[in-house]
Amino acid sequence: MKIIHDPNQMTQIVNQHRKSSQSIGFVPTMGYLHLGHEALLKKAREESDIVILSVFVNPLQFNDTSDFESYPIDEKRDQDVARAHHVDYLFMPHANDLYKNKHAITMHVKERTGVLCDRSRPGHFDGVITILTKLFNIVKPDYAYFGKKDAQQIAIVDLLIETLNFDIKLKMVDTVRESDGLAFSSRNVNLEEIERTQASSIYASLKQAKQAILNGEKDPRRLVQTVEKTLQTIDTGQIDYVDLLSFPELEPIDRINGTIILAVAIQFEKARLIDNIVIDTES
Amino acid sequence: MKIIHDPNQMTQIVNQHRKSSQSIGFVPTMGYLHLGHEALLKKAREESDIVILSVFVNPLQFNDTSDFESYPIDEKRDQDVARAHHVDYLFMPHANDLYKNKHAITMHVKERTGVLCDRSRPGHFDGVITILTKLFNIVKPDYAYFGKKDAQQIAIVDLLIETLNFDIKLKMVDTVRESDGLAFSSRNVNLEEIERTQASSIYASLKQAKQAILNGEKDPRRLVQTVEKTLQTIDTGQIDYVDLLSFPELEPIDRINGTIILAVAIQFEKARLIDNIVIDTES
Repeated sequence: MKIIHDPNQMTQIVNQHRKSSQSIGFVPTMGYLHLGHEALLKKAREESDIVILSVFVNPLQFNDTSDFESYPIDEKRDQDVARAHHVDYLFMPHANDLYKNKHAITMHVKERTGVLCDRSRPGHFDGVITILTKLFNIVKPDYAYFGKKDAQQIAIVDLLIETLNFDIKLKMVDTVRESDGLAFSSRNVNLEEIERTQASSIYASLKQAKQAILNGEKDPRRLVQTVEKTLQTIDTGQIDYVDLLSFPELEPIDRINGTIILAVAIQFEKARLIDNIVIDTES
Repeated sequence: MKIIHDPNQMTQIVNQHRKSSQSIGFVPTMGYLHLGHEALLKKAREESDIVILSVFVNPLQFNDTSDFESYPIDEKRDQDVARAHHVDYLFMPHANDLYKNKHAITMHVKERTGVLCDRSRPGHFDGVITILTKLFNIVKPDYAYFGKKDAQQIAIVDLLIETLNFDIKLKMVDTVRESDGLAFSSRNVNLEEIERTQASSIYASLKQAKQAILNGEKDPRRLVQTVEKTLQTIDTGQIDYVDLLSFPELEPIDRINGTIILAVAIQFEKARLIDNIVIDTES
């Protein structure tokens, strides 16, 4: 595995592989890799000739400075994880190289926003589409891998690829969970013990609602209420949102129909956790 | 020469050529091709294995509806010109395909703006960088060719490529002029005869100022005044701007130094014409 810092060098390497008609699978991350990321790497390794993992804590997508500053970093472990998954190139650009001219051109996403995480993290997804546009141009992947836990991110990457005509296939990978159902997240490390215990209710509440849908419940409001009730057992954190929307359009719905997302965010003291389930109610 | 309308088909074709390690030269235009465009095509043909010409009157870069509606179109002649220059692919996308979701993601350029054409055409360059991002992603060129007449466009494409890490080399081609010095432009066709005659003063005024610089004039204000005085002979049109700035940064300067641009825009009744000279005063 080669570690690359320079964006130009990364592109030169990619160009060589593309000339040999090798497919490129790309896993963009902010590091502090967990089993969720490992699932992305596994999938990329299975499907692509060359696997590129990027680790870059993107300042542009943090609307909260303290969240940026407390974002966990462990480069040594990230490198070990990358090696264990036979990553070909670990791309770790420096912010100075990547953002020489941070505000010269800005990007703004106007659809699939105004709901879910965009409400409490204004500007977050503008930062996400900007860094992804840059990374996509540097790495030129055939496939880009994202975890379903970040469902709104997936919806917006889908929109980015279609709207700006990127020749990239978005690959969605299932959320990986701990034994009690909590979704793996780099932010879990910032939970207190009692918070961590209570956090298992997040997925429990989603599973309960899914069962209600399978049992024929068609009213989004009643489903949201069911989830909120279960989440009340978490007294160490506050509900940021519980929302039920169409997917991937992320629009409000009056009645359960087609593909829907039920999504939750809980704000704990030092970590905001998100989770969701997407259900194709017609299958 | 093949005419391609479908963006996906264009990308598939490009991918085949890239697999064969063929270089791709791209000339993005709004059609109604003149000798200025032909100079771009000639250069692209010399330097690239595959030449792609796009013709698309981009609604997003017109801030003025009547300007968009009066923009001249002659597809038949464009095809003849393209064939004469041995273009491999003439890409003529339809607005419906390219802008299915026009406002889902917006792009905004904040530097190298606020001066020259950006002042009288607010939003124009946002439209330019958006369509170019899309076309660059569809065509994946090695080289992209632009004429120096649109100097601010060149400065902004340079910024776009660097800021968003496009792996594309910007190629600048000299302005082509009629015998009396008027720069070729698709908009010249909208001039009345008397306007056309007077328009030759635009380049004359620039040449005069260039001579003054070569003679040692260092004061930007005096140079601008010289140009304005010569332009007063045009009584069928009004000066939109006469500006002297650093290039490509497009920042105001107190004294002639380094590389500078002297740029003019004249508003005639049905056509707004621009021209400029860029001078490296240290060479």
